[in-house]
Amino acid sequence: MSEPTGRRSGGRAGRQGHRAASVVAREPFLTRRLKPIELVSDEGLAILEYNADTILEEVGVEIRDYPSAVERFAAAGALVDGTRVRFPRGLARQLVSTAPSQYVQHARNPEHSVQVGGNATVFAPNYGSPFVHDLDRGRRYATLEDFQNFVKLTYSSTHLHHSGGTVCEPVDVPVSKRHLDMVYSHLKYSDKPFMGSVTAGSRAADSVELARIGFGGDLQDRTVMTSLINASSPLVWDATMLAAAEEYARANQACIITPFILAGAMAPATSAGVAAQTLAEALAGMAFTQLVRPGAPVVFGSFASSMSMQTGAPTFGTPEPALVLYAVAALARRLNVPFRSGGSLTASKIPDAQAAYESIATLIPTLMAGVNFVLHTAGWLEGGLSIGYEKFILDEDQAGMMATFTKGLDLSENGQALSAIRENTPGNHFLGTSHTLANFETAFHTSSVADNNSYEQWSEEGGLDAAQRANAIWKKRLAQYEPPPLDDAVDAEMLDFVARRKAELPDEFA
Amino acid sequence: MSEPTGRRSGGRAGRQGHRAASVVAREPFLTRRLKPIELVSDEGLAILEYNADTILEEVGVEIRDYPSAVERFAAAGALVDGTRVRFPRGLARQLVSTAPSQYVQHARNPEHSVQVGGNATVFAPNYGSPFVHDLDRGRRYATLEDFQNFVKLTYSSTHLHHSGGTVCEPVDVPVSKRHLDMVYSHLKYSDKPFMGSVTAGSRAADSVELARIGFGGDLQDRTVMTSLINASSPLVWDATMLAAAEEYARANQACIITPFILAGAMAPATSAGVAAQTLAEALAGMAFTQLVRPGAPVVFGSFASSMSMQTGAPTFGTPEPALVLYAVAALARRLNVPFRSGGSLTASKIPDAQAAYESIATLIPTLMAGVNFVLHTAGWLEGGLSIGYEKFILDEDQAGMMATFTKGLDLSENGQALSAIRENTPGNHFLGTSHTLANFETAFHTSSVADNNSYEQWSEEGGLDAAQRANAIWKKRLAQYEPPPLDDAVDAEMLDFVARRKAELPDEFA
Repeated sequence: MSEPTGRRSGGRAGRQGHRAASVVAREPFLTRRLKPIELVSDEGLAILEYNADTILEEVGVEIRDYPSAVERFAAAGALVDGTRVRFPRGLARQLVSTAPSQYVQHARNPEHSVQVGGNATVFAPNYGSPFVHDLDRGRRYATLEDFQNFVKLTYSSTHLHHSGGTVCEPVDVPVSKRHLDMVYSHLKYSDKPFMGSVTAGSRAADSVELARIGFGGDLQDRTVMTSLINASSPLVWDATMLAAAEEYARANQACIITPFILAGAMAPATSAGVAAQTLAEALAGMAFTQLVRPGAPVVFGSFASSMSMQTGAPTFGTPEPALVLYAVAALARRLNVPFRSGGSLTASKIPDAQAAYESIATLIPTLMAGVNFVLHTAGWLEGGLSIGYEKFILDEDQAGMMATFTKGLDLSENGQALSAIRENTPGNHFLGTSHTLANFETAFHTSSVADNNSYEQWSEEGGLDAAQRANAIWKKRLAQYEPPPLDDAVDAEMLDFVARRKAELPDEFA
Repeated sequence: MSEPTGRRSGGRAGRQGHRAASVVAREPFLTRRLKPIELVSDEGLAILEYNADTILEEVGVEIRDYPSAVERFAAAGALVDGTRVRFPRGLARQLVSTAPSQYVQHARNPEHSVQVGGNATVFAPNYGSPFVHDLDRGRRYATLEDFQNFVKLTYSSTHLHHSGGTVCEPVDVPVSKRHLDMVYSHLKYSDKPFMGSVTAGSRAADSVELARIGFGGDLQDRTVMTSLINASSPLVWDATMLAAAEEYARANQACIITPFILAGAMAPATSAGVAAQTLAEALAGMAFTQLVRPGAPVVFGSFASSMSMQTGAPTFGTPEPALVLYAVAALARRLNVPFRSGGSLTASKIPDAQAAYESIATLIPTLMAGVNFVLHTAGWLEGGLSIGYEKFILDEDQAGMMATFTKGLDLSENGQALSAIRENTPGNHFLGTSHTLANFETAFHTSSVADNNSYEQWSEEGGLDAAQRANAIWKKRLAQYEPPPLDDAVDAEMLDFVARRKAELPDEFA
């Protein structure tokens, strides 16, 4: 389990071994029993693949300010013209073939280690927001305290499996140093798996070093971070992201290679065009990680939004991104690599009905399409500019719904319940049957936020809306938070490292 | 087109002919290009069918206070023991085999006629709520004015195809007479298809008579109503519903035969148990319509809710009802009859995030499972006890999303958009490419309620939540409402009929 489990093997046995070792009640990751839904025919997917190859062959990708990557591609058979790299048809796909179909990302607490790929889905929270929102204080810049609060809320979450990365931007800490506080916070306040910094190669290296200390001094090439590498769509890979990806791949740490596309702006305005371009960009990025270290774990990522025709603003929870998600998930399966997409996305500024409609209209396709790694599962507001405390609680609750749904229909003898129907008499309720009594506690998924009471009772209890109830929940969770065990010597060594690096680095806020 | 289009024939050609005749911009019903999603294996579905047959054979159904129905079943080969009717294995299915696989429900305006069955989905609004809710006046008993308002809002809706039935209960009108006002309102304030009364056989007869006048004096056995016949689960059919069903079937009007199940109370607490019992109850009810008139249009309905483990209250938008929906939709397809289920269901009392999460978590499975007739598409609140004006606007908007989604991925040459990618240069945006300019207006579905603006602009415009924006929309729509054309003589004849029947009927409020 300390290595990628290889192509087409090891997953099931590995997972079973993994889960047998766990003593926690919650599952370390979601295991889907429902097969991924295929909305695009094999013929349609083959067209998208052919188009991606055409894009890579005719247009190619631009590699900005990173000559060593150009050289790696050239050595592998790509055609280089300055910073433009073109791939003979099939080359990029061939380079990606060394990537594992799934891997284990180890957590500081082995019971929280996750499988990335196969029929596993890993839920991670929001990523990258400079602002936070809550009902009490409204919208404001995020701080390190907010960051740590969300790490704590994710740690105490039954439904989130992964601590995420830049859950929000701690803008009160210099840009040049905040990666240290973020990685330390993930290691200190949680023992779930997490993501490293990608804003510079040196920060990725710091992340690896800090993780090494946090994991007890030696990673032995175990994968303990899965970090987010975004393309500069259309068809550009820049030096910052490539340097971070190189650092992680070299250390056998996982990268999520993600074309980040606002359709109509960074790609054509049509979904099939977005899907083909996404595949082309991801193939180039994934190929790069495999050139750095064949077999390094890598995830095919896709982030696609649609656009308001009135204003050009990004829109979420709309039909077109859902169609792209289903198509690209299928393309990732055909490549036999893990897939990241989806989440609980919305353009709403507050945790209102718009936020909920749009978020769940993204999260359901995420699960139905068989996404393996879900960033932005909880908290996302305002097109990602803000993370909401109440939104976090509401989304997390929906993630729990998905976990139950993807178990599928129970067709066991107990599930079929013929005995109950035989025992009962027409016209009489089933509340007292032995079958109902035996099943009642586990029969139905229960939301921790929804109010299902009568109007009268709900009114008597203050007539609160869902966001107001969520407000009470996150405050209680933070008040009750207790940190996971952490060896004092390890903590001291991490703090030393952070202090030393902070002393070495200049203060930069942009 | 004036008759059910028969089993496995006529659908596509009939629909194309129908649509060619239409000059309205909006589609009269939604045509799904995506195939229904199968979440249960053929083997699993066969188990559920076997169990339904076992239930019908061993337990049977109770026919309350309606001896003629018992006699019809006995004559068809069922085994009768008092009011209990048991079906030898396969009998009920055989009786249902005369039902059409799809039919056309004619609207007063032929351009609004809908196909029920096949790859068509028909959206109808909320049904049956005694209360209404809006942001200005809160929750209160519904009136005839509310009823008419919702008929007007549905008439002016781009996304709802069907006027529905008891959109809300006009409790200011005596129970004994309100069916007349409701059917008249559907015919007067809308020209979309609608539902008749089912609260008594005589009221069904009144509905048929009023429709006959409204359609110009002669229905010629055309189906112009699709009405809701609920079972008294578990396994009971009562005289009121059977009398209404008999009245409609005899006149070749469609019935939706719907087991209405709160799992754990009216059925076992497990989803496979709910599905098998639903099939058993629906088979008995559908068989009854076919005994009354072989070939009468009938829809297999399913309404299934889960339950709060704390309070026993019904819960919506949870995983279990979604699983039941997918299973029963597949069972209906195997029976080759149209299917009704789903909608925008929620236990929330107000149009908040809970309402939105739960509603769309019901509506997405509704479309993915291939439901043909969707009651409660818009407005439902509080487990059906209330219809919300703002909720109506919000839900209707989501129905529009579904219509776009179910068109699937466009893989035409324009959809593939290779020309755009070839025309563009890596790193440059696509906003000015000829492909984007040619596609921009139609490329992305646009919500009529969502706010996608920046936080600053949204704040400047009042920082409204989605419900507050919906509040302005329904008021504007009602203010701008104009009734469809209606022949004065026909209107006068309908009013005469309503007045005469009201004079004949006693005032009853319960």
